[in-house]
Amino acid sequence: MNKEKLRAIIEGNIVSGIIQFLILASAVVFVLESDSEDPQALHFIVLDSVFLGLFSIEYILRVYMESRKRDFIFSFYGIIDLLAILPSLFLLPGFRVLRILRFLRIFRIFKATRFILAVDRLTEALNEIRRELLALVILSMMLVYLAACGIHYFERNVQPEEFGTILDSMWWAIVTLTTVGYGDVYPITPGGKFFTAVVTLVGVGLIAIPSGLLASVLTEARVERKKEENDEDVENRSTGGIDK
Amino acid sequence: MNKEKLRAIIEGNIVSGIIQFLILASAVVFVLESDSEDPQALHFIVLDSVFLGLFSIEYILRVYMESRKRDFIFSFYGIIDLLAILPSLFLLPGFRVLRILRFLRIFRIFKATRFILAVDRLTEALNEIRRELLALVILSMMLVYLAACGIHYFERNVQPEEFGTILDSMWWAIVTLTTVGYGDVYPITPGGKFFTAVVTLVGVGLIAIPSGLLASVLTEARVERKKEENDEDVENRSTGGIDK
Amino acid sequence: MNKEKLRAIIEGNIVSGIIQFLILASAVVFVLESDSEDPQALHFIVLDSVFLGLFSIEYILRVYMESRKRDFIFSFYGIIDLLAILPSLFLLPGFRVLRILRFLRIFRIFKATRFILAVDRLTEALNEIRRELLALVILSMMLVYLAACGIHYFERNVQPEEFGTILDSMWWAIVTLTTVGYGDVYPITPGGKFFTAVVTLVGVGLIAIPSGLLASVLTEARVERKKEENDEDVENRSTGGIDK
Amino acid sequence: MNKEKLRAIIEGNIVSGIIQFLILASAVVFVLESDSEDPQALHFIVLDSVFLGLFSIEYILRVYMESRKRDFIFSFYGIIDLLAILPSLFLLPGFRVLRILRFLRIFRIFKATRFILAVDRLTEALNEIRRELLALVILSMMLVYLAACGIHYFERNVQPEEFGTILDSMWWAIVTLTTVGYGDVYPITPGGKFFTAVVTLVGVGLIAIPSGLLASVLTEARVERKKEENDEDVENRSTGGIDK
Repeated sequence: MNKEKLRAIIEGNIVSGIIQFLILASAVVFVLESDSEDPQALHFIVLDSVFLGLFSIEYILRVYMESRKRDFIFSFYGIIDLLAILPSLFLLPGFRVLRILRFLRIFRIFKATRFILAVDRLTEALNEIRRELLALVILSMMLVYLAACGIHYFERNVQPEEFGTILDSMWWAIVTLTTVGYGDVYPITPGGKFFTAVVTLVGVGLIAIPSGLLASVLTEARVERKKEENDEDVENRSTGGIDK
Repeated sequence: MNKEKLRAIIEGNIVSGIIQFLILASAVVFVLESDSEDPQALHFIVLDSVFLGLFSIEYILRVYMESRKRDFIFSFYGIIDLLAILPSLFLLPGFRVLRILRFLRIFRIFKATRFILAVDRLTEALNEIRRELLALVILSMMLVYLAACGIHYFERNVQPEEFGTILDSMWWAIVTLTTVGYGDVYPITPGGKFFTAVVTLVGVGLIAIPSGLLASVLTEARVERKKEENDEDVENRSTGGIDK
Repeated sequence: MNKEKLRAIIEGNIVSGIIQFLILASAVVFVLESDSEDPQALHFIVLDSVFLGLFSIEYILRVYMESRKRDFIFSFYGIIDLLAILPSLFLLPGFRVLRILRFLRIFRIFKATRFILAVDRLTEALNEIRRELLALVILSMMLVYLAACGIHYFERNVQPEEFGTILDSMWWAIVTLTTVGYGDVYPITPGGKFFTAVVTLVGVGLIAIPSGLLASVLTEARVERKKEENDEDVENRSTGGIDK
Repeated sequence: MNKEKLRAIIEGNIVSGIIQFLILASAVVFVLESDSEDPQALHFIVLDSVFLGLFSIEYILRVYMESRKRDFIFSFYGIIDLLAILPSLFLLPGFRVLRILRFLRIFRIFKATRFILAVDRLTEALNEIRRELLALVILSMMLVYLAACGIHYFERNVQPEEFGTILDSMWWAIVTLTTVGYGDVYPITPGGKFFTAVVTLVGVGLIAIPSGLLASVLTEARVERKKEENDEDVENRSTGGIDK
């Protein structure tokens, strides 16, 4: 069969739709199977076998239709597509030992990102701000570290269970600086409370910057895309005017 | 009566003000009635009948004044206006059975959006970023799914009540990733805590992007509107200068 | 004394500094007095008298130096300046009955905004986006209302104490949608949890828009201010070139 | 040795990499030592001595290679580099008394910011918006103050332990306005709940502005940098065209 024809079919709307449905169905079945009292019931095995079969066919066809097979196999989606079938091999006799890895089937969900067009925009935007992002991530890490050390210093004597070690205190630092604030650990000494006040007011701002940054870059990219489209329109019209 | 005159009256300040007051009053009465020990007290029935009557008249007039009646009836506000009266029909004899649907009267509140001018700007902005938004919503769903699967893996043995099933774990994932953090469920194993740290730091950023995006687009739209107004001013002045 | 000279002194750095110190000191004394076991101790009365005296002198001088006295008296700062002294009048014999209003002295803190230059920028930015802001506030109110009605519907039978009335449920709605999430009230039914998931994912985004909007407008205003400064520089230079 | 050569070595990739590794290692050792049951174990003393030695050598070389030694010593990194070695001097005989200050070794972590390039961008952006930032910080302080006074007024009689003093109430104000919401303190009176609703809806917005502002300024700076690069490209090409 012609490779280009095959690609047209696989990347066409019908097959794409089927694959998307299979990914979703496999995610749902994964939940039902995990939550079931009898995860090895026959209907689960049948469904898993169907997913294994269809995803295997998809993978083989995708490898077949690529001229640069090696590039595809080691690309992001190549690995994801492989990971989507490998953990299901335990269904085959002789691979029972792989049963322990069946949890890895959740990575199948990443196959879905292939079909979300705007994911490209997000990754481009992330790439655009990777330096600021790296700086913010490192600064956030440092803040978590300093917050954990500080609260450990203030609270270790009064709440040794919760803040007895810096590592324990890091749990508090994460939960506080992301403003989740479960309420399982919180300072009770005046010093610890004052320290928390200072750290949260600074930290809450710091941790919120990346998403604001990403939003700005996405908007900027959209504005540029719009401008380019307009420019092309103008160009087309003006050259069109000359031609005719 | 002339349809245009009728429209001028209904969309005029006085009638609009009255309708807005009725919507607000009906929302307040809905709360009072629900919280009352005797929701079938006479004064509630009287008030509900008044709302039913007036909103019915409004609906009939709105349908009457439209030349494309079908378009209006199946438009957003056409359906909302109808939903605003339908659940109150239980007040009429022979429709008692509809009493069970009287809870649907809360949708009356949506009638109010007709009067908030800037809602158009919001919906335009939402439309502008619908692709990014869709991608972010799907990615958020995937994150909730993966977070739930992950925490289920770490905590299921220690906290079977809270994290015994992936579905239960999803509640934790939602409450954590939106940073609400009630504190009814939280991880206690070191693995679960570490997983939570990673997931929240990523997820908090992801879930905050849409509102930043919307804010950027709203600002952008406002800048453009301003520029257009300025351009028109300049044009008016220059052509005015030529004329005179 | 010359009014312009007086204005130069009062709005000069020294007097401004003293007033700012007095405002801060009065705020600190207010806290100490409230937290004290004997709020009527002599030193508090002395301090309050000093604040009363000095703020009264400030107010009288400010009224005196304005040519349009009525405009000042009914302006924002005119009212704040008056409110800063009125509740302290209980210190005078014959005004003891005003003691009950001494709590109002906290409004003195608003006197401080006069000295924060960028407050003007914030109020301008708020004015710029007042329409979007109004729409977002109304939509947030509607969301709180709908969330409260919804959760009341799901949880009223299981948690009558917390969600028995819509008014009670509103407390949950506020605490959840602002992502504070104290953990004093949260849904426990599957329906209520699912409803919460949907409402928070939408609501968290909605409530975060205004601050993103404000941030964008502030940036935009700053960019324009910068451009104007540059344009003036260019203009000055070019006209300067012509002159010489 | 030539100072410029020395600078090339110290600021080169290899030495920079080693210093970064040492900072990270010292941070990890600090945690392990604090969490250890025997913080004075031999291996910790050896490791600390190594860090002391290497950071001392680094400090001496950095001072030596600068021509304006005083400027470096009193610069941000000069002080940080000194603070990175001072608290470890307790390892030397005769400086045992400094053991109490060994907690200050956490400031070593700030040495790392020297290597995060985008930190410059962040500090520039912070400098750019310092006025707005100052205003927002003061307004946030005022909000915390007013929120604490208000909740104290509503809750002091019902929850004297938590809200008995304004100072105690400030803890609640901080935890609520940053949306951390541990759940250790929350209002229970209707008045306090209503007050909380108003204060959080306003305050959550206020406290989120700075990070939005910072994100916008970072984006703006990036756009300008990009434009400048493009302009330089264009200039280079056009002048290049003229030359040839």
